[in-house]
Amino acid sequence: MAYPPSPLALPLPEMPAIAGVEIASVAAGIRYKGREDMTVFRFAPGTAVAGVFTRNKCPGAPVDWCRAALANGKARALVVNAGNSNVFTGRAGRETCERTAKDAAALIGCKPREVFIASTGVIGERLPTDTLLAALPRAVESLAADAWPAAARAIMTTDTFPKGATRTARIGDSTVTLCGIAKGSGMIAPDMATMLSFIATDAKIPAPVLQGLLKKGCDASFNCVTVDSDTSTSDTVLLFATGQARHPRVPAEGAATMLKDFRRALGEVLHDLALMVARDGEGAQKLITVNVTGAVSARSAHRIAMCIANSPLVKTAIAGEDANWGRIVMAVGKAGEPADRDLLSVAVGGTWMAREGGVIPGYDETPVVAHMKGREVEITVDIGLGRGRATVWTCDLTHGYIDINGSYRS
Amino acid sequence: MAYPPSPLALPLPEMPAIAGVEIASVAAGIRYKGREDMTVFRFAPGTAVAGVFTRNKCPGAPVDWCRAALANGKARALVVNAGNSNVFTGRAGRETCERTAKDAAALIGCKPREVFIASTGVIGERLPTDTLLAALPRAVESLAADAWPAAARAIMTTDTFPKGATRTARIGDSTVTLCGIAKGSGMIAPDMATMLSFIATDAKIPAPVLQGLLKKGCDASFNCVTVDSDTSTSDTVLLFATGQARHPRVPAEGAATMLKDFRRALGEVLHDLALMVARDGEGAQKLITVNVTGAVSARSAHRIAMCIANSPLVKTAIAGEDANWGRIVMAVGKAGEPADRDLLSVAVGGTWMAREGGVIPGYDETPVVAHMKGREVEITVDIGLGRGRATVWTCDLTHGYIDINGSYRS
Repeated sequence: MAYPPSPLALPLPEMPAIAGVEIASVAAGIRYKGREDMTVFRFAPGTAVAGVFTRNKCPGAPVDWCRAALANGKARALVVNAGNSNVFTGRAGRETCERTAKDAAALIGCKPREVFIASTGVIGERLPTDTLLAALPRAVESLAADAWPAAARAIMTTDTFPKGATRTARIGDSTVTLCGIAKGSGMIAPDMATMLSFIATDAKIPAPVLQGLLKKGCDASFNCVTVDSDTSTSDTVLLFATGQARHPRVPAEGAATMLKDFRRALGEVLHDLALMVARDGEGAQKLITVNVTGAVSARSAHRIAMCIANSPLVKTAIAGEDANWGRIVMAVGKAGEPADRDLLSVAVGGTWMAREGGVIPGYDETPVVAHMKGREVEITVDIGLGRGRATVWTCDLTHGYIDINGSYRS
Repeated sequence: MAYPPSPLALPLPEMPAIAGVEIASVAAGIRYKGREDMTVFRFAPGTAVAGVFTRNKCPGAPVDWCRAALANGKARALVVNAGNSNVFTGRAGRETCERTAKDAAALIGCKPREVFIASTGVIGERLPTDTLLAALPRAVESLAADAWPAAARAIMTTDTFPKGATRTARIGDSTVTLCGIAKGSGMIAPDMATMLSFIATDAKIPAPVLQGLLKKGCDASFNCVTVDSDTSTSDTVLLFATGQARHPRVPAEGAATMLKDFRRALGEVLHDLALMVARDGEGAQKLITVNVTGAVSARSAHRIAMCIANSPLVKTAIAGEDANWGRIVMAVGKAGEPADRDLLSVAVGGTWMAREGGVIPGYDETPVVAHMKGREVEITVDIGLGRGRATVWTCDLTHGYIDINGSYRS
């Protein structure tokens, strides 16, 4: 399962320690040999938490666990493993979560419900719970503040590069820091938070406010990315605010102005991470940006953009470096959203190829051909009906996707 | 663009002449060299017609033409070309249809609105109308009653084998015959009639009755097939009834009992043709049957089955001969239909692998492994909630699909 790094990979940035966050990654041996596959986060007392999860109707046991734990809005620990997603594992899966939370709580000194759990990997196989739990004490002993890079690597499955992002933001006269990591490469789908991402900040923000910020931030980032239209059963984004920074108190309501810069920074971290997931799409050779303008609403524009981004025929054409705008039109039409064939315009790489329902006679193909050979391809479709706009990101569909997914379990 | 025949190909059956139907296929040279690419059908006066078309919101000019022509319920001719779909071609595309109908009507001696038109091939390029029209007289001169096989070949694009089916049916004490052909291999999607199919019968059935029969027949056949979830802009199924057979008069209403056997025969022809499209799915190595039982309704079962059949991860797993039932569960969950993870059961090739939300401990993998190596794979999912059931068909997702679609226009 070791594939060469995506040609679209980005280097991991310098990730500073966040006051109130300690991290450790260890080799538990759950599935992979010779690599770290389990990560534990310890958070300072008073840490608030927000979460966004898969909308798949068959979620994994860890997602059920986190949803229930989130009701308290407080977190002291996070236990993540890669290699087995603990999905469709019935009672055994629930017991794994209960035992993990109990053991971690005992080691850290908190309540089981303050322990969050995420698992990623094969679906439908029982997670070897004893193996996981045996590694927990080792992990807790080696907790350290500056261990983000190792964690970004330990949560990977078919990912070919570790994904991290960091920003600072001003709250009042104080500076707070955000760090986030993500994993995800296949089973990446629209309309939900995608695979695993964990973000931490030293800001002190009440859990309900944090939840609102995370929800909005995910809608504009992870929910705008698709690799293969398949919605994972384990998608989880968690945002932890340790409250260790000194800044004016953030009220439970009316915090909009005060958190303007924090919202900007969080949005940028989520955007960075989401695009890294698209860049690491299974088999990806090209990052594709799909802009839709002129739709009847933003929601309609988003649906059309996702329909283009999920079309196997559009994605294989781009893999073949063919600016096949006819397939783009087909994808607009199959979305089922309001559209009038005779008002559509299509541009690739900024060059308009078709306007108001027909090819532009004698348009210059040269810049389009050059654009298609690059690593980043931009498609813009103007629907010509209204003012709704949206942008989503995806990758091309290549032989690599077939290679990876035809042999994932073997 | 010449790919080897699908390993799932079926031989073309013996196709008898239908009284009142003459057919000719010629090499018009629209796009392909050295093969027949245009087919003309002439129907006897009094032929009734029914049609089902794409639900894509950006349909091709020929679909618009046929929808309008269908209002009369009468047909005297059908002109089909392969290589250019005349889609997204604006005013020029409409003019092509008008000129084609006018010329064909003059040659055959009917009204332009009694001429039906279908085009398949590249989207967004102007159809060379003069080239098409120049070949029309030649085609009309060579019309013959027994020319179904040549027509089945002339309408192919990325198809690797010609598709035809035939049945007889009893109406009263008389026997009528049905013949049908289809083309389709990629851009094959749910919830509509798929690509081009033309069926003719010598039965005498009023157009509104014929339309009802075709609509129901398509829902149970073409609308249950998907190759890649992409909905073509040209999908057209036309059913012509020449009325040349002698049988008791079919009333405009209350024909249900009288047409019971005809409905059966039509259903079988449509089913045969639809499955041939799945068998010729671009890059297909395996034909996949997806059965869903126990859903809250038939509609819900159909949606879940289509979601499984369209999942790239399910389809690549099957290409890799991996009975990855975890991905099947994922696809059930992403459908958004009522489902309870802990009630789901999954069987592959008749062997139950998971029951009520968990793997069956110690189930015998041997027959599953053997089944996965075959050309036909059957998946059954029981939702465990109700009595809704559905079956759909698709093919696996292989390197062949990427090869074909990364280079279609080059």
